[in-house]
Amino acid sequence: MNEVVLLTGALGNVGRTILSHLSDSYTWRLIDNRPPDSDFPYDIIAADILDTSAVTEAVEGVNAIIHLAGDPQTSASWKSVLRNNIEGTQILLEAAVNSGVERFIFASSNHVVGHYETNDKPTLSDPNSPFPLDGTELPRPGNLYGASKAIGEILGRYYHDEYGISVICVRIGNLNEDAPPVDYARGQSMWLSKRDCGHLFDRCLQAVYGYEIIYGVSDNDSSYYSLDRARTILGYVPRDNSAEHIS
Amino acid sequence: MNEVVLLTGALGNVGRTILSHLSDSYTWRLIDNRPPDSDFPYDIIAADILDTSAVTEAVEGVNAIIHLAGDPQTSASWKSVLRNNIEGTQILLEAAVNSGVERFIFASSNHVVGHYETNDKPTLSDPNSPFPLDGTELPRPGNLYGASKAIGEILGRYYHDEYGISVICVRIGNLNEDAPPVDYARGQSMWLSKRDCGHLFDRCLQAVYGYEIIYGVSDNDSSYYSLDRARTILGYVPRDNSAEHIS
Repeated sequence: MNEVVLLTGALGNVGRTILSHLSDSYTWRLIDNRPPDSDFPYDIIAADILDTSAVTEAVEGVNAIIHLAGDPQTSASWKSVLRNNIEGTQILLEAAVNSGVERFIFASSNHVVGHYETNDKPTLSDPNSPFPLDGTELPRPGNLYGASKAIGEILGRYYHDEYGISVICVRIGNLNEDAPPVDYARGQSMWLSKRDCGHLFDRCLQAVYGYEIIYGVSDNDSSYYSLDRARTILGYVPRDNSAEHIS
Repeated sequence: MNEVVLLTGALGNVGRTILSHLSDSYTWRLIDNRPPDSDFPYDIIAADILDTSAVTEAVEGVNAIIHLAGDPQTSASWKSVLRNNIEGTQILLEAAVNSGVERFIFASSNHVVGHYETNDKPTLSDPNSPFPLDGTELPRPGNLYGASKAIGEILGRYYHDEYGISVICVRIGNLNEDAPPVDYARGQSMWLSKRDCGHLFDRCLQAVYGYEIIYGVSDNDSSYYSLDRARTILGYVPRDNSAEHIS
C-alpha cells in the first residue's frame, strides 16, 4: 500500500513539481490556503496551516509530511514570516508528533545562508572560502524570510531530538525548468531542475535518516553548495547541470 | 563620559549581578516589566519589551544593549517564548539598528545545546565526542526555551550581517554564588560565578567584535564548553572554578 503523504502549500511551484513527478508513487493529501485552478486534478484541503484544528485533522493517518506552506517572498515582512513560516511550522511539527507521523521534510532555502555572500562574491577556489557550504555551517540568513527558514530548521532539530520524528531540511535552490543565464553565477550555482526536484523529494520520502540539512540543487559545475550529504544519505543522483542547460 | 547601556530584564538574577559588579562603570538605563522592590536603588523603566513604543524610546541615545528580558523558564510554553523571547528580541534588535546602537549583547543559554546530552552523558575524554562545544556547532535545543534562544542568535546574526551592529550571544551557564554539588556533573560543568559573570559582561561591553557566540561559564575543571573564543575575542579571564568551590 502506498504511503500517505501530506503536502502543504501544494499549489506552489515546488508542490506542483513534486506532484507532477511523483503523483502515482504516493497517496497524496494536499493542503493549501489558496483556491485551486478549476482544472487542478486533485482533491485539496482548503485551509491555512495556522488553523490548528484543520492541521490536526490533516495529519491524521499520515506517514510523512512535505512542508512547503509559508510566505515564499524573500522580501516578506517579519510580521508575515513570524506567523506564516515560524508559527505555521511549529503548529505542523506539534501536530505531526502528536499524531505519530514518521518523517517531516521541511522546505528550507538557500536564503538561510545568503549572507555568506555579503561582502565578497564567493570565490570557490579560495582555500579560505567557506564555500562550498555543506549544511554543517551556522546559518547566515540573507533576509527575514531566510531567518524564518533557519528557525524552522531549529524547530525541526528540536522536534527530532525530543520526539524521534525523522526531519530533513532541504535548502532549496532556484527551481526552474530552464537553467539561468550563463552570466548569472548565483543562479547557475543554485539551479534545481524540475526532474531533479522530483527525484530529490522522492529520496527524502524513501531514505533512512534522523535529522539532516541538505542542499537541494542540481549537479551544477560550479556551486556554492555541496551535494555530498544528499548523495550519501539520500542516494540523490541529480541528472542536470546548469552549465549544460544554458537558457 | 560613560557609555550608556540599556539593560533589559534588569530585575532578574543576571541583571542584578551585572549591576552589582558594574554599577559605576556605565551609565545604566534599566527596563523590566516587573515592579522593583521598594529598596531597589536605581531608576527603572516599567515596560514590557513587547511594547514597541516604550522600547523605541528606551533605546534612544544608547551605546549598547544587554538583552536579558524574556521568559527564563526552561519549561516555558511555545506560546510564551514565541512572544516574550522571539518577538521581544526582534523588536529590540529592530529598534537598536533604527536608533544606531553600536552593540547588542544577547543573553543566550546553555539550553541552546541541551540536546547534545540527549542519549549519553557527555564523555569529555571520548575523541568522537562533540564536547567541549565551542559555539561553532549547530544548535540542538533541549527545550522550547532553548529553541527560542537559538532563534535569538539567528536574529542577531541577521541584524549584524544586514546592519553592521556588533552582536555577541552569551550562552550563559548556571549563575550562582556557590558552585553546585560535586556529584552534579552538569552543574559543575556550567557554573558561572557572580564575579565571573560581572567581568564577562564588562568584557562584552568593551571588546571589539562583529558577531560572536561564546559560552558564559567559569573556568571549571571539567566542562562541556570551551572558553577559547571568550578568552581570545573578549579577553575574558575567569577567576573561579567549580572544582575549587564545592558547596
